[in-house]
Amino acid sequence: MTHGPRYTPLVASLPATVPFVGPEAMERARGQPFRARLGANESVFGPSPRAVEAMAAAAREAWKYPDSESHELRAALAKELGVAPAHIAVGGGIDGLLGDLVRLTVAPGDVVVTSAGAYPTFNYHVAGFGGRLVTVPYSGDHEDPEALVAKAAAAGAKLVYIANPDNPMGSWHAADRIQAMIDAVPEGTLLVLDEAYIEFAPEGTAPVIAPDDPRVIRMRTFSKAHGLAGARVGYAIAAPGLVAAFDKVRNHFGMSKVSQEGALAAIGDQGHLGEVRAAVSVARGRLAEIARANGLAALPSAANFVAIDCGGSGALARAVLEELGARDVFVRMPFVAPQNRCVRVSAGTPLMLDLFQSALPDALAAARARVR
Amino acid sequence: MTHGPRYTPLVASLPATVPFVGPEAMERARGQPFRARLGANESVFGPSPRAVEAMAAAAREAWKYPDSESHELRAALAKELGVAPAHIAVGGGIDGLLGDLVRLTVAPGDVVVTSAGAYPTFNYHVAGFGGRLVTVPYSGDHEDPEALVAKAAAAGAKLVYIANPDNPMGSWHAADRIQAMIDAVPEGTLLVLDEAYIEFAPEGTAPVIAPDDPRVIRMRTFSKAHGLAGARVGYAIAAPGLVAAFDKVRNHFGMSKVSQEGALAAIGDQGHLGEVRAAVSVARGRLAEIARANGLAALPSAANFVAIDCGGSGALARAVLEELGARDVFVRMPFVAPQNRCVRVSAGTPLMLDLFQSALPDALAAARARVR
Repeated sequence: MTHGPRYTPLVASLPATVPFVGPEAMERARGQPFRARLGANESVFGPSPRAVEAMAAAAREAWKYPDSESHELRAALAKELGVAPAHIAVGGGIDGLLGDLVRLTVAPGDVVVTSAGAYPTFNYHVAGFGGRLVTVPYSGDHEDPEALVAKAAAAGAKLVYIANPDNPMGSWHAADRIQAMIDAVPEGTLLVLDEAYIEFAPEGTAPVIAPDDPRVIRMRTFSKAHGLAGARVGYAIAAPGLVAAFDKVRNHFGMSKVSQEGALAAIGDQGHLGEVRAAVSVARGRLAEIARANGLAALPSAANFVAIDCGGSGALARAVLEELGARDVFVRMPFVAPQNRCVRVSAGTPLMLDLFQSALPDALAAARARVR
Repeated sequence: MTHGPRYTPLVASLPATVPFVGPEAMERARGQPFRARLGANESVFGPSPRAVEAMAAAAREAWKYPDSESHELRAALAKELGVAPAHIAVGGGIDGLLGDLVRLTVAPGDVVVTSAGAYPTFNYHVAGFGGRLVTVPYSGDHEDPEALVAKAAAAGAKLVYIANPDNPMGSWHAADRIQAMIDAVPEGTLLVLDEAYIEFAPEGTAPVIAPDDPRVIRMRTFSKAHGLAGARVGYAIAAPGLVAAFDKVRNHFGMSKVSQEGALAAIGDQGHLGEVRAAVSVARGRLAEIARANGLAALPSAANFVAIDCGGSGALARAVLEELGARDVFVRMPFVAPQNRCVRVSAGTPLMLDLFQSALPDALAAARARVR
């Protein structure tokens, strides 16, 4: 049989690489589990017990298709945010929303601007729709709002992406700087403001939401502070016309009923959210202490992870990451120099941080022996 | 602010219509709930208790991102089907898999062949990627394999779609006729064999799976016989090259961990599956009796629903559907003549079928009074 599908020219040109290899896949390759899961910026403190209960109840009703409009969830989010449900699009995590957004706006050859070393899954979607990615460097471990906007204007970008707080560095900008960025977005460019980690940031990091502003789409998620990464629920806040455009392309019945119910219950448990925020703050402090005790510097972070400067090259940080992995501690690291001098360690439980603390000195020594 | 996103020309050309309005949205529009939910071909008999339990347990672990490779689920499916995991792609229901498949193969202007009145969500995805849909009529309430293949050859189609058993008519072809269709698929065309309802069909409906056959991709789901429509888990069986191609475009971490665990447990409960099959068979018989008692004919069905011929025009069937809705009974109907002389009623619980039985005579009389 010589038959086979004829892929589109675009698909035929795409690489087989995936943006992230997950920890389970790494564990299968290693042949043993990690003992400290500190690489994916998950909320190790877990979801709200109310969300767990709601998901268990929804499981019994899982024979029903989900509400394709996520009516209750969007209404609750709208109330929480002081906007209308027409300003809210719900999707399969920020990843899913980014994919649909790129599909809506990026035709082959269209330019998209982001920072070199920012979120790889966004870049994956841009490549997947044939977009041309143009990058600007970080500035002092921060994404550079002015440079991003200037590049977007110069390149005629369809989209310009920034995460605030930033992943993978944990750095952040105050709201007024982001608002200035929104105000400077060139006509014809949409600002994608990824606020996945916003719940961990200091007051004054998120600009006031002007939901009818057509220049910006904000992305948020239940995967981080709400501890529901496994449920895959993200949401976007945008002008109603843009929210409605998602309906032209999205998988309408794609959002699990169980996940919708879990997210809805999570919104209702602000007490749990406060506890998680406090636990993350403690964990960040402890990560900084551990770094210091090993002669390393932890970067300030407004997220649920800390970038630790390993004090050398990208190769050294890569070796530290590998040596931590060999000691059953899963962490990740930035992709691009000079940020890749760091490893990125998620806010862990005290037990996980104990494991990190005891693994780090040996991992560092072994890495230094391998890489000058 | 005059700014706004610049959509791609394709997206700008797409209509705002959605393939299906779900029952919850209809209930919101009506201002009251349905009492009998018989329109979406859900499994009213519910998921396996083991699946419910597995989802409840997974909810507690929902802070973890899902396994992006769905390793355990694909391994279990492969074992069940006698194929390798490399033959299995998992996605957000058949809907999600169809969307990704169309993206892989259909560039603007490419031809796709289906039956007039077959699955609207497939057509939605084809339109969404700029494909040109070419249809052939049903033949005696069956999709017409020979006509589909002939049209695919004549039109140089990238994809040709058939559902076996068929939705919305419930009709089916024996395996040898589908195998003959596979053997006749023209070079350069991929056959999309939608087997969403295969578990309800008589032995001998599904051709033997030849997983390396590059001419066909089979789609199956946990939404129907497994009663997990709300969890959104579908899978495709195809040659490894095609399965790998999904990795170029899919949302890698998009499949809920809770859903993966539920589906995995459902595979392990073949007893529950047998009970559901038996209950569906009883319900189909009762729907046929109810039709007969009202002077109507129920079409033979190999699915978990029955098409009931209302004995007149599409307008009459539409009126019957509306009058049933006014009596709190949710059903759907085919979109295209002559199949749209029918209403499509899902296999219900005895209580739901009681409600249908008592509503139908009045609904029929009211419909006949409205439409000659």
